[in-house]
Amino acid sequence: MSVSIIFYDIPSTHPSRTWSPNLWKTRYALNFKSVPYKTVWLEYPEIEGRCKEIGAPPSGAKPDGRPHFTLPVIQDLSTGAVISDSSKIAAYLDATYPDRPRLMPPGTTGLHRAFEEAARMQLDPISRYGPPASHKNLNPLSAEYFRRTREATWGKTLEELTPKGEEDAVEWKKLEDGFGKLDEWIRANGEESSYFMGDALTYADIFVAAYVHWIQLVLPEKWDEIKVWHQGRWAKLLKGLGDYETVV
Amino acid sequence: MSVSIIFYDIPSTHPSRTWSPNLWKTRYALNFKSVPYKTVWLEYPEIEGRCKEIGAPPSGAKPDGRPHFTLPVIQDLSTGAVISDSSKIAAYLDATYPDRPRLMPPGTTGLHRAFEEAARMQLDPISRYGPPASHKNLNPLSAEYFRRTREATWGKTLEELTPKGEEDAVEWKKLEDGFGKLDEWIRANGEESSYFMGDALTYADIFVAAYVHWIQLVLPEKWDEIKVWHQGRWAKLLKGLGDYETVV
Repeated sequence: MSVSIIFYDIPSTHPSRTWSPNLWKTRYALNFKSVPYKTVWLEYPEIEGRCKEIGAPPSGAKPDGRPHFTLPVIQDLSTGAVISDSSKIAAYLDATYPDRPRLMPPGTTGLHRAFEEAARMQLDPISRYGPPASHKNLNPLSAEYFRRTREATWGKTLEELTPKGEEDAVEWKKLEDGFGKLDEWIRANGEESSYFMGDALTYADIFVAAYVHWIQLVLPEKWDEIKVWHQGRWAKLLKGLGDYETVV
Repeated sequence: MSVSIIFYDIPSTHPSRTWSPNLWKTRYALNFKSVPYKTVWLEYPEIEGRCKEIGAPPSGAKPDGRPHFTLPVIQDLSTGAVISDSSKIAAYLDATYPDRPRLMPPGTTGLHRAFEEAARMQLDPISRYGPPASHKNLNPLSAEYFRRTREATWGKTLEELTPKGEEDAVEWKKLEDGFGKLDEWIRANGEESSYFMGDALTYADIFVAAYVHWIQLVLPEKWDEIKVWHQGRWAKLLKGLGDYETVV
């Protein structure tokens, strides 16, 4: 099968180049589906222009109402489809390549959508820790853009976003409890379960692993704590996804 | 099969007697599994004593730290098990009666658990409307207990809980948007899907239908609005569960 999909990702100075959790969701998904693709790297200020050029729909609206163009985006040269948003891309890949391994087994697409909402809520404290740490390893063009736009949205500097002192203790405990809830969901399938659907790795695992991988990469000192939570559950999850982290 | 399960429920003056969403979850589940059961009705002040008597575990802790005993509880005379909490009861029924229709198809118990969190969040505004309306049809013993304990927990009267005026407009819109999100999850399986797992009715549908049934019963004027939302989706959902609403 020749390359049929272009996958747009945001580079960093990390050896893997890829880093963002939302981009990891799609990269894991593409590797899991085993659909040939190649990466095109875009710095943050290049995203909107390229999206408009290839006809990628915005993923939402900016606070001022203008369309917001974000990655991941894939462009499938074999069908002409251009899809934005990791969740929609996963559904597209299952629908378009049904003979490849299913990211979401038949009948579970709606449950997966609900899972994303629920898991995002449990992992919410990560959004205070991850972005400032990510910023440190962006290339200059992206770093300037990222700081300017994020600080305008949040109304605080990247440095102010990171919880400190007592607030750090509270937020970090919230994150541990959130992962604890995810651990419960896995064990609801049976105490020996490794994945959110028991023995089978699905998009739910990819969704969570994308955040875990992000933290491992940008906050190695925090990863040292997370990797021993819940009997090493999250280190094992990343290991389970090891076959699907190739960057091509 | 002779009656093997006692199901504890809270009565009201409605013709169906049953009314509470959490109790509807278990009643629907028992009827769906087609496991013979009979209802034992307990007024609110009788719940804690009976739970302790039969060894039902508390479902959580009260604000002051004492154990909180709540219904639903089922007592399975054939196994000796006594289970509290609608979610645990559903898992118990699937594990103990695997030859009966599955509430949660194999591999989906963890996703269902996440679904419950996500759906509860979307339906959150209901908790401002439902309890005051429910109170009106409780028997005097339960009504006094319900008002006293709920008002202590919330720090406001039942009458103050119900959103009014502008706040009503805001909260009701939030609820409509929440149902809109649930509608999206159903449609994620395909536009023609009727249920959260596509064509198959599962515990996710029961979970949501329990709240819908509650509103239909205690707030008929609000139900007139909900039943036309999303192309009549929620009226159809209740109809789909019509075979499982028997009260025995």
